Amino acid sequence: MSLAADLALAHRLADAAAAAILPHFRAGAKVQEKGDLTPVTVADRAAEAAMRAILLRDRPADGILGEEEGLTRGNARRLWVLDPIDGTRAFIAGRATFGTLIGLLEDGIPVLGLIDQPVARERWVGRLDAQAGATLNGRPVRVRACTGLGLARAATTSPAAFSAAGHAAFQRIGGQVADMLFGGDCHNYGLLAAGHLDLVIEEGLRPWDWAALVPVVKGAGGQISDWRGRPLMLGAAGDVIASGDRRVHEAVLARL
Amino acid sequence: MSLAADLALAHRLADAAAAAILPHFRAGAKVQEKGDLTPVTVADRAAEAAMRAILLRDRPADGILGEEEGLTRGNARRLWVLDPIDGTRAFIAGRATFGTLIGLLEDGIPVLGLIDQPVARERWVGRLDAQAGATLNGRPVRVRACTGLGLARAATTSPAAFSAAGHAAFQRIGGQVADMLFGGDCHNYGLLAAGHLDLVIEEGLRPWDWAALVPVVKGAGGQISDWRGRPLMLGAAGDVIASGDRRVHEAVLARL
Repeated sequence: MSLAADLALAHRLADAAAAAILPHFRAGAKVQEKGDLTPVTVADRAAEAAMRAILLRDRPADGILGEEEGLTRGNARRLWVLDPIDGTRAFIAGRATFGTLIGLLEDGIPVLGLIDQPVARERWVGRLDAQAGATLNGRPVRVRACTGLGLARAATTSPAAFSAAGHAAFQRIGGQVADMLFGGDCHNYGLLAAGHLDLVIEEGLRPWDWAALVPVVKGAGGQISDWRGRPLMLGAAGDVIASGDRRVHEAVLARL
Repeated sequence: MSLAADLALAHRLADAAAAAILPHFRAGAKVQEKGDLTPVTVADRAAEAAMRAILLRDRPADGILGEEEGLTRGNARRLWVLDPIDGTRAFIAGRATFGTLIGLLEDGIPVLGLIDQPVARERWVGRLDAQAGATLNGRPVRVRACTGLGLARAATTSPAAFSAAGHAAFQRIGGQVADMLFGGDCHNYGLLAAGHLDLVIEEGLRPWDWAALVPVVKGAGGQISDWRGRPLMLGAAGDVIASGDRRVHEAVLARL
């Protein structure tokens, strides 16, 4: 079955999330802390509620896993995985590097992903069916070649997001790349898919952080896996590396 | 004498720099390394050349200090200090957080500053004459109140930019703030001036990195100094803290 109808729906979800988020950008949205000490704002909650309302109406048989409201119909074969604002800290600080993430898993495997940056109006889409590919604002994007780690431009959102062991591993990699940028959240994966970054390395991601990224990165010809090279799946530990070039991916895996 | 004519000129300089930079954004500009191992692209060089051409014609008696071409007429009383692309690494990676920085010093003291982000079309201006103030795209901006370090949202571009001693000091501060964001370059100071961040802490800045920031931050009601609380001046070590609220600034100084 074609993903075309799901893709059209994903665009409508992203439009609804953007409409809920934009009035709060740089408007002093009140910040609360959740039980896990991550910040959440009224914009996060309104955006997830807007997407859930559409899914409940138009895909009543599908499951939903959202960062803010958790799991609905977890035994469904198709699962929509939503992060209304990935990079809430960046959102709160007024940086247009946060994003709305929409992923569709079938039997636990990501088949469709969307990364939306509503302020800069950048929207990446990736699909992994017979028409596999990735686009930025409708134009095809492709990772770039990078022959080795020493030439790689890499990024990670925050050094403070690593565990102690993870940080040591991150520093081994960081000491060998051409450049390491910080910050960026999900936007880094879009830049990788579009051929501007060669490597993104992170730890502690949850399913709503990575579900949308997999089809975008793979659709653009890149690699994304956990730190042992295994596919990302529900229940995984959340350590993620994404690379534009397989040679970079293998060099990183060999050092982790 | 009024700074109005200088302000109009600064806008023209920023327009010329933007015209030189934008064709190279996400266009695969070739990266070279300078002697100090920082990257430079044809966009950096073209943007500085475009600004210098205007200054040489319209302000023939003024001095110029630019990141790429160095010092011209260093004994002039008025010195234009230019960074064509602050955040060249972000520029190369396709992130719209780099900026063109234009500062004017009179007798070594910053009196006018402009931070321009040409992709997002965000332009901050600050002035420190009788009409002191700061604007973002023409609208007045103001820092926000923050009663103490524990409530402060802070940012720094890269933990790797600190010296060993500086990094230890940074970590003491970082452990006490509400949040520490990474990345951002000069854009962080604009966000601080507009009331979205409370603290920016960095080390190793050069005059072209900070000259434009001082009038923007001070014009918006904030504080900016070196790590001992002294005003930033030519020849200083380049350790910089900027705060929206004086209480945050004093709390940081007490811990450095």
